[in-house]
Amino acid sequence: MIDQSTICAISTAPGNGAIAIVRLSGTDALTICDKVFIAASSKKISEQKANTVHFGTIKDSDDIIDEVLVTIFKAPHSYTGENSIEIACHGAPFIQYRILQVLLKNGARSANPGEYTQRAFLNGKMDLSQAEAVADLIASSSAAAHKVALQQMRGGFSDEIANLRGRLLHFISMIELELDFGEEDVEFADRTQLQALVNEIKTIINKLVNSFELGNAIKNGVPVAIVGNTNVGKSTLLNALLKEDRAIVSEIEGTTRDVIEDTINLGGVMFRFIDTAGIRTTLDKIENMGIERTFQKMRQAQIVMLLIDANRSVDILNESIAKVNDNIDRDQQKLIVCMNKVDLCDDTKALAKQLVGLNEGDKLMFISAKEQTNTDELATELLKVVNMDTLNEQDVIVTNARHFEALNSALGSIVRVNDGLTNQIPTDFLAQDIRECLHFLGEITGDISSDEILGNIFKSFCIGK
Amino acid sequence: MIDQSTICAISTAPGNGAIAIVRLSGTDALTICDKVFIAASSKKISEQKANTVHFGTIKDSDDIIDEVLVTIFKAPHSYTGENSIEIACHGAPFIQYRILQVLLKNGARSANPGEYTQRAFLNGKMDLSQAEAVADLIASSSAAAHKVALQQMRGGFSDEIANLRGRLLHFISMIELELDFGEEDVEFADRTQLQALVNEIKTIINKLVNSFELGNAIKNGVPVAIVGNTNVGKSTLLNALLKEDRAIVSEIEGTTRDVIEDTINLGGVMFRFIDTAGIRTTLDKIENMGIERTFQKMRQAQIVMLLIDANRSVDILNESIAKVNDNIDRDQQKLIVCMNKVDLCDDTKALAKQLVGLNEGDKLMFISAKEQTNTDELATELLKVVNMDTLNEQDVIVTNARHFEALNSALGSIVRVNDGLTNQIPTDFLAQDIRECLHFLGEITGDISSDEILGNIFKSFCIGK
Repeated sequence: MIDQSTICAISTAPGNGAIAIVRLSGTDALTICDKVFIAASSKKISEQKANTVHFGTIKDSDDIIDEVLVTIFKAPHSYTGENSIEIACHGAPFIQYRILQVLLKNGARSANPGEYTQRAFLNGKMDLSQAEAVADLIASSSAAAHKVALQQMRGGFSDEIANLRGRLLHFISMIELELDFGEEDVEFADRTQLQALVNEIKTIINKLVNSFELGNAIKNGVPVAIVGNTNVGKSTLLNALLKEDRAIVSEIEGTTRDVIEDTINLGGVMFRFIDTAGIRTTLDKIENMGIERTFQKMRQAQIVMLLIDANRSVDILNESIAKVNDNIDRDQQKLIVCMNKVDLCDDTKALAKQLVGLNEGDKLMFISAKEQTNTDELATELLKVVNMDTLNEQDVIVTNARHFEALNSALGSIVRVNDGLTNQIPTDFLAQDIRECLHFLGEITGDISSDEILGNIFKSFCIGK
Repeated sequence: MIDQSTICAISTAPGNGAIAIVRLSGTDALTICDKVFIAASSKKISEQKANTVHFGTIKDSDDIIDEVLVTIFKAPHSYTGENSIEIACHGAPFIQYRILQVLLKNGARSANPGEYTQRAFLNGKMDLSQAEAVADLIASSSAAAHKVALQQMRGGFSDEIANLRGRLLHFISMIELELDFGEEDVEFADRTQLQALVNEIKTIINKLVNSFELGNAIKNGVPVAIVGNTNVGKSTLLNALLKEDRAIVSEIEGTTRDVIEDTINLGGVMFRFIDTAGIRTTLDKIENMGIERTFQKMRQAQIVMLLIDANRSVDILNESIAKVNDNIDRDQQKLIVCMNKVDLCDDTKALAKQLVGLNEGDKLMFISAKEQTNTDELATELLKVVNMDTLNEQDVIVTNARHFEALNSALGSIVRVNDGLTNQIPTDFLAQDIRECLHFLGEITGDISSDEILGNIFKSFCIGK
């Protein structure tokens, strides 16, 4: 049962602006609007055509609240699929709240977070993964995050899943037919074709599952632990990397400030630079606790950037490298050793030869954060960790942990189907595994969903979307 | 010469929201939109009807930026009076900036603060005082401020001024005709009628000038200096006054935090509570400097609220009252003496009899901020200072310092016209004074304006309006 009540919310960002938008959606959207809006033309909104905009005043009884523009959308041709009204008013919070109040007074109720998009999903305007992408799109703060969210919202991912699911559905119906004919040993589902499809599905899901590492990095930022003592030039380096992107970064800061030290957009990818206390050897107990935290943060990062002063003794440098070596996972993490302050260093080549403990795949860079020497090269090196080529090929990238889990489960099922075909297990077991795979794929697009799943998804949306 | 270039800006509040609006206005608004927007219907925006809304994608070459709704307004039926486009996109700042960028790339330029409204004025969509009211409306944060701004924007004030000016213009043309006939001693302008009009104008302008005190209080908040030592219960009292309005207050706080201690909306009027250090007698030099600052703040306030602990000795209470008495202007300022903590006080009536130094018109109140005793009565008392009846009679209230100045100048001129009529001064002197009055009235509505005046007015607008 879809809730048909008429909901309202402020849909633009909170605060003062030139314009704000209050949205109204549901069966009575047009008639509620009639009660509060007097068009300059004096025609009723409910008698006007869809997709037209009208100037007039919003009133609370005789009290004029504002001069506004009202845009009309009629079911099913609206975002929610319902009758909808958008009221563009002057952007004072006082006015926005008064308009909400008068709508509530006239029969609307306050929308829950994400309720517009939830209704769009329930009314078949988009599938569940598209609905989830709407929230990602609104939250996107880098070119890469924007691109994958937009692609997902426009149905790239859904199409891929729906295609696999559709073809698998064809086989399950054939197989269920076989089961109906139980005793007769007929084979409606061509096993060779089924095997081919299973192989294809396995390959595609595998690829999708593997894309999640990239997708997650794009969506949440690539975590980079900067390991280095306080005077080694960390903030100078971050400023050098920032460059003209500073404005965009400061836009986002407020939302992430409490967890992350610095978020920097490099070449369209967001990197989260996690500052650490350094790993200087000490006898001080409290300082040693700080070092333990550094190791923890290092282990959570995708890239560990060891920033050291190239002018320290080679022994100290090698000791730092050794310590980092002991605390990272070479299969999962990339180490970049940055020798900073090379502008003060006589012979970097000689120094490089004396450094020990670097593995193949580690990157050694000589930089000067202050002089911006090799900082662009460092940015390029960071970007290599994110295989942007994958993204640029317009492949589907999984960014959502819920999809990742469902895909992993679907992969498990399809592997069992594959084994079943190989071992020629009875058809009803085979059918069971195929149904499971269909179920997990259906969870992604929302063909299979529960109130709990929907509740979890939409509660993290902003109100007004 | 009106600048016809096409301008663009983000018009909704900054930050993340469900929806954001990017506005485009100028001769090429529709054709620029055609270059970046692909409608789902694949029809060109420039070929669509005015006041219609269209779904589609915004593209930067082949790169899709977002799925958006585009609303079309055609000259002269738009806010600016020009061709205009409103693009409603997903509310990520990243997307908003990308859309701005692609518009700039295709021939638009960034709008200056208030440039949309300035164009609306220059294109005759509103007069200057209405344009100024737009900014007031967007900044309005109380029912009263909202009401006067809306009334002014809807032309209440302009009509009044335009009416006076129109009638005076009639006389000046008659008088100028007399001057043309110089030698012939004719009288086209009926002096009795002119005297009647001058009387009327004098009365009306006087009323408008006098309304500014209220208007200014409504627009900027009524300044209330709370004089009281730290432990006397100031913050408890403010919280008691706040009550359910807290949410609305916290909305506004951010904008005023640096100058004002607490802004509270009482009965639709904004009060600015200015905290002071108290006026306790002391020998300490630094503390005495604090007291001097308290007196300064007191002198700037419209209401002085002396908050004292009713349980102190009567001598101390009377000393405080005496000190405040010495430092306020009884003609301009209202004194409210609040005896706080009456819940701990045995006999307030006996106390009241012992207090000396209170003048007629001063208000003595026994309250308990903690128990919320008489705090509603205190709010009512504060509200009495603002004569809201004036406001509710739908009279025109002057809120703008520029208008106040112009009205004062106009009043000076019309008084000279009046004296001139009484003293039967030569017609050309009379004409000079009438022309001056017309000039000052014209400054308000913008019939008389200069680039400098316009520059000063619109630079304080937000970008996007």
